[in-house]
Amino acid sequence: MGQKIVVIGGVACGPKAAARLKRLDPSAEVIILEQGPFVSYGACGLPFFLGGVVKELQELINTPAGVPRDPHFFKAVKDIEVLTRTKAEAIDRDKKIVVARQLETGEILKLPYDSLVLATGSSPIRPPLEGIDLAGIYTLKTLEDGRALKEALANPDIRDVVVVGLGLIALECIEALFKAHKRITVVEKLHWPLPTILDEDVAFPLKEALEDRGIEIILGEGVKAFEGRDRVEKVITEGGREIPCQMVLLSIGVRPNVDLAREAGLEVGPLGIKVDRHLRTSDPHIYAGGDCVESRCLISGKPVYLPMGSVANKHGRVIGDNLAGMESVFEGVVATAVCRLFDLNIARTGLTEKRAREMGYDVVSTIVAGADRAHYIPGQNPLLIKLIADAASGRVLGAQMIGPGDVLPRVNTVAAVLRSYGTIEDLAAVEMAYAPPFAPAIDLLTTAAWATQNKIYRLVKSYKPYEVKAKIDRGEEVILLDVRTPKEVEAVKIPYPNVVYIPLGKLRALALEKLPRQKEIISFCKISLRGFEAARILASLGFPKVAYMEGGLAAWPFEKEFGL
Amino acid sequence: MGQKIVVIGGVACGPKAAARLKRLDPSAEVIILEQGPFVSYGACGLPFFLGGVVKELQELINTPAGVPRDPHFFKAVKDIEVLTRTKAEAIDRDKKIVVARQLETGEILKLPYDSLVLATGSSPIRPPLEGIDLAGIYTLKTLEDGRALKEALANPDIRDVVVVGLGLIALECIEALFKAHKRITVVEKLHWPLPTILDEDVAFPLKEALEDRGIEIILGEGVKAFEGRDRVEKVITEGGREIPCQMVLLSIGVRPNVDLAREAGLEVGPLGIKVDRHLRTSDPHIYAGGDCVESRCLISGKPVYLPMGSVANKHGRVIGDNLAGMESVFEGVVATAVCRLFDLNIARTGLTEKRAREMGYDVVSTIVAGADRAHYIPGQNPLLIKLIADAASGRVLGAQMIGPGDVLPRVNTVAAVLRSYGTIEDLAAVEMAYAPPFAPAIDLLTTAAWATQNKIYRLVKSYKPYEVKAKIDRGEEVILLDVRTPKEVEAVKIPYPNVVYIPLGKLRALALEKLPRQKEIISFCKISLRGFEAARILASLGFPKVAYMEGGLAAWPFEKEFGL
Repeated sequence: MGQKIVVIGGVACGPKAAARLKRLDPSAEVIILEQGPFVSYGACGLPFFLGGVVKELQELINTPAGVPRDPHFFKAVKDIEVLTRTKAEAIDRDKKIVVARQLETGEILKLPYDSLVLATGSSPIRPPLEGIDLAGIYTLKTLEDGRALKEALANPDIRDVVVVGLGLIALECIEALFKAHKRITVVEKLHWPLPTILDEDVAFPLKEALEDRGIEIILGEGVKAFEGRDRVEKVITEGGREIPCQMVLLSIGVRPNVDLAREAGLEVGPLGIKVDRHLRTSDPHIYAGGDCVESRCLISGKPVYLPMGSVANKHGRVIGDNLAGMESVFEGVVATAVCRLFDLNIARTGLTEKRAREMGYDVVSTIVAGADRAHYIPGQNPLLIKLIADAASGRVLGAQMIGPGDVLPRVNTVAAVLRSYGTIEDLAAVEMAYAPPFAPAIDLLTTAAWATQNKIYRLVKSYKPYEVKAKIDRGEEVILLDVRTPKEVEAVKIPYPNVVYIPLGKLRALALEKLPRQKEIISFCKISLRGFEAARILASLGFPKVAYMEGGLAAWPFEKEFGL
Repeated sequence: MGQKIVVIGGVACGPKAAARLKRLDPSAEVIILEQGPFVSYGACGLPFFLGGVVKELQELINTPAGVPRDPHFFKAVKDIEVLTRTKAEAIDRDKKIVVARQLETGEILKLPYDSLVLATGSSPIRPPLEGIDLAGIYTLKTLEDGRALKEALANPDIRDVVVVGLGLIALECIEALFKAHKRITVVEKLHWPLPTILDEDVAFPLKEALEDRGIEIILGEGVKAFEGRDRVEKVITEGGREIPCQMVLLSIGVRPNVDLAREAGLEVGPLGIKVDRHLRTSDPHIYAGGDCVESRCLISGKPVYLPMGSVANKHGRVIGDNLAGMESVFEGVVATAVCRLFDLNIARTGLTEKRAREMGYDVVSTIVAGADRAHYIPGQNPLLIKLIADAASGRVLGAQMIGPGDVLPRVNTVAAVLRSYGTIEDLAAVEMAYAPPFAPAIDLLTTAAWATQNKIYRLVKSYKPYEVKAKIDRGEEVILLDVRTPKEVEAVKIPYPNVVYIPLGKLRALALEKLPRQKEIISFCKISLRGFEAARILASLGFPKVAYMEGGLAAWPFEKEFGL
């Protein structure tokens, strides 16, 4: 007989570990315990089921060939036994037995194992606030959650919805709520949307996209309480606002399910079950992976929590390998994420600037704006890229991108460079694919790397829009030099009195006459390609204090005045 | 006074070098000589002008802000003097003087330099065939070429067009010819389309896409002669075919323009002007970059010729840095390329399998098929990925991808891994972005890396469709096991007598009864995800000779029988 393996958890990491093991070691006897009624489903597809992109929940259960991944499938195809509605209740590590309960019959099972896999996943955080248990307060995690939410969306009595927390899942759901014609208010404790994904200075297009669609956003305030008789009727914020609603979507993150591991005496940290590079827990006969474990950040080496379906699947494969005697390792994560909201694509990999600063890096960061394809190709879309590096070592620390432009080719490139501990030089040297319908000759990511190099080498001085605004707010005597054409200026401008307008083509001729030498001059244009050029021109003309504003108007989140 | 710099060539590398230098060293006196009437234009956009995607040639000359990049622009904005219609005729390296002729007036200029930049570009190859100088034989390189071709496309007397050579530019133009309702015949000397970009085993979707649109393809035959009285009327192939036509598009590649360098006594190889990592020629006062130089392949370390606009621009920046005293280097190329034909996206980076074998690598390669997004998201598109690695070291050597699916995120990831000399393990470990509308939880590229690992570790045996076909053609007694559902089989199947049909879900139950143990069994499905699973099942049941067919039906380029 082969080794006996028990896998606790049947969504992503668990089935993957079981399947990989069976492919490598067909003699293994594998049982998967899953407390829910479904296994191995595409939980990440739930927001798209809500939005009607995915028509039936069943599609999230089926294989690409349309076969349901149910216990019968696992038995027939993979020779794996799956027990659904079966909850593991205790682990006897001495006897190497899992005690489980069949939730419908109450039957107690005692399952011996040679090796055990914990893939217990995560649960949505439900803070112990007043009224948290009222009906009408939803989270989205399981297929059952998805079904319940879908019904709520179709319910005409539910008009006003409050979304609590503005993270990835919330964003994906907001589009569904909007399509269902709900009146939406979003409450986010931090001061900008997607606060763990984006830095504040590149989050504004997201805020604008929400506001443009009439979605109210309350930032910098948490929820204090939920009120209502039978159902939720009101959300009370920490600032004392009362938001009437018939439904709440709670989306403030998930927590690793670690009770079973902790009760069994395994080492558990605040970010999940502790595992080594082989994903072995403190008990060498027990592996753990997916949302229930603590990850290691490849960039900082620090513990981090990253509950992602993609990572869970990779964990599963590594565990399967190790169970079969192959010494596979999982080195860590760089936290790549991507999402779409309306016409905006948003992506991040690595550390945010905020996080990098908190960790003590000598941070240099740059924002660039530009098009995702050759500028003469219709359908090219704008994009902002923010790149974060360590000035001392030149190492890339992270990147963020946002805009209607194509983010995936860029974020994956940075993720690959992060994986090889690359520098900004390494990133600039990646030979990204070029053809006009796909990318500009110099990809915007390469431009971002070059701009960061220029900054590290102090070849050019530049400020981010936030830094420019702070200078103005502090009353510094700076001149903003707008070098766009009169026609562009007519359409939109920064309505400050200290803006001077000289189109780039006339700057060499007019600068000495029109611009004072004693003040700091910060040049910009639509995306600050010309703004950069203008700063170089002024420097070459001997102006002593010159900088350009990174990203130009495209990255300017503050007041704008629109013309006709 | 600053250093005097003369730049010969005004399209991509030259202006970039000049502009970068001036930004770093405003005191430099820079002159660009360009023999054509235009400078710094988007030559790569020409095929899209032909196809009407780009409406006016002027758009290829303008900056993103709509300002023409003409001599006035270079003077006003960049303080660079541009002399168009001016041909450099000789370099006196002792006196450090360039002798140039103004093509319209015949005036001879003698331009002294401290450093010289050669960015002389490339010219389309026009083989010395009979009739090569007949009217109606076009190439596409300059704006003037583009204008002439556009007129030809609009000419109703031109109905039949022969495209000679099936490379990147040819592909981009074929779509324009097709849209202009021309009858198109393509003649390619090698045996499959895009022969330097794709291996034969993944080129078939391209062939099918052309044939589906009534485009005739003649492979494995070069052109012997062109015939006609005043204009071309006929193309004669090496095989003796006579193809009547009123127009020929010659697209068999370009050659570096090295005459000037060679006459000046600089070191020139068969692939272009020889340069070091700083892009310095054999004369330390002369730099060269762009299409006129020989590149170094980062993977093999061998010389290679890669005339690409993106590379030329990067060369320009490195030259500008070095002219300004910064020790920038250009390490080499990995030859990333991307193009689109109708609904197919095609990309390559690194070495093809053919090239890798020629170079003596211990090649392992894998083909995988799958979707570019989560399988339950409507609008996901299929893709084939071929990955090439060195089995001995595990190093990634290259990748090819083709299909309606999104190639850019995948090819850029491989390009980044190639740049860091990464292994298949490194590629598999890249944390690619995941969200259902963007990518599957396990990206198809990660799947390709895993499949290659399985192959290197000899965990599973697999054959490519070409290898399977060769076995059958040799009369080997193999069984092809199709594990798709009856409904799928009804729609399309491989019409060979040695195919056995058992749906995956029934394989464990029926295998021993239905399949002979003594024959080799090669399983497959639509994409061979189930095919792979089937091979594992058979192995676990003790079948001694089992393999799966990589990529399944999606990668099968041979006979297929379609049902209703």
